Amino acid sequence: MTEAELEQLVAQIAEEILSRVSPAVPAATPLPAPAPAPVSPPAPALSPQAIAALIDHTILRPDATADDVRQLCAEARHHRFAAVCVNPYWVPLAARELRGTPVQVCTVVGFPLGATTTASKCAEAAEAISLGATEIDMVLNVGALKAGDLAAVQADIAAVAATCHRAGALLKVILETALLSDPEKIAACHASKNAGADFVKTSTGFAKSGATPADVALLRSTVGPSLGVKASGGIRSLANLQAMAAAGASRIGASASVHILAQAGQP
Amino acid sequence: MTEAELEQLVAQIAEEILSRVSPAVPAATPLPAPAPAPVSPPAPALSPQAIAALIDHTILRPDATADDVRQLCAEARHHRFAAVCVNPYWVPLAARELRGTPVQVCTVVGFPLGATTTASKCAEAAEAISLGATEIDMVLNVGALKAGDLAAVQADIAAVAATCHRAGALLKVILETALLSDPEKIAACHASKNAGADFVKTSTGFAKSGATPADVALLRSTVGPSLGVKASGGIRSLANLQAMAAAGASRIGASASVHILAQAGQP
Repeated sequence: MTEAELEQLVAQIAEEILSRVSPAVPAATPLPAPAPAPVSPPAPALSPQAIAALIDHTILRPDATADDVRQLCAEARHHRFAAVCVNPYWVPLAARELRGTPVQVCTVVGFPLGATTTASKCAEAAEAISLGATEIDMVLNVGALKAGDLAAVQADIAAVAATCHRAGALLKVILETALLSDPEKIAACHASKNAGADFVKTSTGFAKSGATPADVALLRSTVGPSLGVKASGGIRSLANLQAMAAAGASRIGASASVHILAQAGQP
Repeated sequence: MTEAELEQLVAQIAEEILSRVSPAVPAATPLPAPAPAPVSPPAPALSPQAIAALIDHTILRPDATADDVRQLCAEARHHRFAAVCVNPYWVPLAARELRGTPVQVCTVVGFPLGATTTASKCAEAAEAISLGATEIDMVLNVGALKAGDLAAVQADIAAVAATCHRAGALLKVILETALLSDPEKIAACHASKNAGADFVKTSTGFAKSGATPADVALLRSTVGPSLGVKASGGIRSLANLQAMAAAGASRIGASASVHILAQAGQP
């Protein structure tokens, strides 16, 4: 286990324990005296319904079966998640299962390595949309970004964005923040915004680590309010989801979505 | 770290230590008496050149850059590896770097999850071949295999095989053995052979574990002598390569290829 993985594990365990032992703050405790400096009031807790509306309910394991996808869709219908996120092979099934519901069908292209050609990414997106996908999460070209070839990175995104928008679908750009320096994350945000993407997204869930509140805050401050920010990768608890939302995430990718809702009091 | 990962780590460390401490067996020690049962003579050590000819020299990290790919190709030219294996985006560069040499250009499709559509896999393969690839390593549809939908698994492979063979390229089918039971591995071998694939291959290198000699032997005994068997994923030492070759592998995917050749005495 790498030191980074160990640190992440420790952080996850600490967070999980804290989420279980923290007593709820009483809402109406009167303050004994005026606070010495202006303090933001504690944010009201998100309702289970508001939490569900943030979530892309996700199954991207390569060994997921049709039964797994059907169950994912049933959960998404029941809880009114924003979307399901499935591999391209499962788009027709998910579209069938979710017809007539507000749950969107999201899929992934150039996933999870981002190192396919622009033509492949566009063809994957166009086919997925024709089969029923309404949201496309693409992985940017990490190697080109690492080499400073920002023109290639932006052109790749712009071509997929045009493909998506022509067909009325949204495009989210996965940066794979675990592999990037902060200046690279910022450059990727600018390239995504310039290329016309609708969201930037932190992670595939297949790298050594996933979303962090610090990365979400960096992405949000870089793209501003007009783009979405999707936090994904390793978000398995309500406390973690809330930290991402507080940092600026407007969408959350999660597989443990039903567990998270249970922590929020949703039966 | 999972128990399986821990076990794999222990096995890797043990193997590495053994490969460093084992004294070379003297070739001509006379036997004191006839052996009580027929014993195969120890196989002669493979020459560094024979080892190089088995290797697909591989870089599939998403953050690999053009410079990394150029170096990979230079090493492949120098040592006469069988092929380089790169992500699709890098096929034109690798083809340019290896023009006029016997080193093949291999790339991956539907990689590493195998859960893209057949149309996408075929389009990726056709484009890669048009850009200079001569060998295609595709990931089969693991989810369809898990659900017992062998017709879908075989049709997916057959379509990509036809695409490859029409253009004179080889097709290797990655089973991702780490996710499969032994009966599923056998079924995948039959589907690959029936579909006209040229090789079966153990692993993507992105699952929780890679090739094992037992899996290579199982694949070899299932496909027989007429197909290739490529062992890949976690092969980082000469001892490990030799174990795979002894078990029936006819091609080895490795990133540590130069290190392995150094262990074989190649400067």
